[in-house]
Amino acid sequence: MIKKLVIIGVGLIGGSLARALKQVGACREIVGSGRDAAQLEKAVALGVIDRYELDPCAAVRDADVVVLAVPVGAVAEVLRKIGPALAPQTVITDVGSVKQCVIEDARAVFGEVPANFVPGHPIAGTEQSGVEASFAELFQQRRVVLTPLAHTRTEAVQQVRALWEQAGAEVMEMDAARHDAVLAATSHLPHLLAYTLVDTLARMENHTDIFRFAAGGFRDFTRIAASDPVMWRDICLANRSALLSVLEDFGADLEQLRKAISAGDGDRIMAVFARAKQARDRFNG
Amino acid sequence: MIKKLVIIGVGLIGGSLARALKQVGACREIVGSGRDAAQLEKAVALGVIDRYELDPCAAVRDADVVVLAVPVGAVAEVLRKIGPALAPQTVITDVGSVKQCVIEDARAVFGEVPANFVPGHPIAGTEQSGVEASFAELFQQRRVVLTPLAHTRTEAVQQVRALWEQAGAEVMEMDAARHDAVLAATSHLPHLLAYTLVDTLARMENHTDIFRFAAGGFRDFTRIAASDPVMWRDICLANRSALLSVLEDFGADLEQLRKAISAGDGDRIMAVFARAKQARDRFNG
Repeated sequence: MIKKLVIIGVGLIGGSLARALKQVGACREIVGSGRDAAQLEKAVALGVIDRYELDPCAAVRDADVVVLAVPVGAVAEVLRKIGPALAPQTVITDVGSVKQCVIEDARAVFGEVPANFVPGHPIAGTEQSGVEASFAELFQQRRVVLTPLAHTRTEAVQQVRALWEQAGAEVMEMDAARHDAVLAATSHLPHLLAYTLVDTLARMENHTDIFRFAAGGFRDFTRIAASDPVMWRDICLANRSALLSVLEDFGADLEQLRKAISAGDGDRIMAVFARAKQARDRFNG
Repeated sequence: MIKKLVIIGVGLIGGSLARALKQVGACREIVGSGRDAAQLEKAVALGVIDRYELDPCAAVRDADVVVLAVPVGAVAEVLRKIGPALAPQTVITDVGSVKQCVIEDARAVFGEVPANFVPGHPIAGTEQSGVEASFAELFQQRRVVLTPLAHTRTEAVQQVRALWEQAGAEVMEMDAARHDAVLAATSHLPHLLAYTLVDTLARMENHTDIFRFAAGGFRDFTRIAASDPVMWRDICLANRSALLSVLEDFGADLEQLRKAISAGDGDRIMAVFARAKQARDRFNG
């Protein structure tokens, strides 16, 4: 059992992890920290955390595990702040959607990535934000990817793995660069496209009509455009090179399809649509 | 009450309309027609239609209303076939996702769009196809757009309106060109993007991993890429100019965003994401 777990950033992800671990009694105490006192008050009132400390240094003192559940753009600053207060045996992990940048941040702050720092990413979430949106089942049967380095302590990895498994997730390890490339394709690019599409339409003259006649397909396609803009700005910047790379592939394919439509080339359109349907059906099955 | 309703193309849309009208007893008889005898047999076995005729001319004889529920690319051919067998008082409507092309097809086949022809489009559907996927509630609280011409008979419009209202839909009238522009933005472009994205990823080297680590956001975003490729090829070709126009707007916005990411311009990324989130939240509310 973990005696003291600290969650910095008690929002959708941090709050859901706290709820899940409380439900199975995995920790003696869960302490929250963050910049927003009102959110932390709410987290205590909702029973998500036991107590909070506005000062992250006070929060992490004597912690067994510290979970950084802040947007990736805020990780460096938090590490800088808590660094002097961390006990040598405290295990640190994060939940950021981009892993190479978090590793670089840790290296920049500490000179070398601490052996007790286990970069992690739960592939779970909703388009909602904040502790009110958190729920204990968020990680059930979801994947969590850990991207430890060669010198990361095995015991630290084991402890973080156990944490997520107790929250119901399936944990796997992966190289950080590979993680970032895969997530750029399946998550970061779709968010980019959904945000862009909604913004394009919202700025059209007849946008009231446009949204009025939108149906279920549009609703599903653009659901992710309701996600937290700060979090996604940070992800786009943090995973810039992988994202631009897959965007380039996508852009080239879209241009080919545009040409086929412009030329009235039904066979080429059909080839793309049929291939995509087949891939999407396999993904579902 | 309609004595004889004929549905040509008893798939998801045609089948669901038949089921809905049966449920409220709107027709004495519903006759199906189409090219696929096995599908029509299944439609009879499922109780979706009362009987079928493989020959569309035999089917439409003495019909009160004929509903063309085939892909838009097949409308011209069906109209050509059934033209000689149509009684002058028979009301004809269609369910195509593009309206100007259907109107042009009718004009080409008959010399002038018949006064009893009411172009229509139920804005409803799922990514599934075929009569097995049909259900009576598909049109409940969904919009149906009719795009009658100046000389379309008011009684014909009324009859088609009543048909869809009995199926649970809210019916509105709109100019065909406006309909096509709005649907290009909210439906046709999202389908194009979803198909392209899935195809781009499916053709990547590590595509097995890519789909393995895809989560709920990806699932929703790409659901429409499982739609019928033939239907969507036809829509892209039929609504080519409106689709290329909105695709151009989208492409320009995506290029701006790409530049902002490439330049590390967080403020510009944030402006787009925040505007999109606001628009998407309004759409939901």
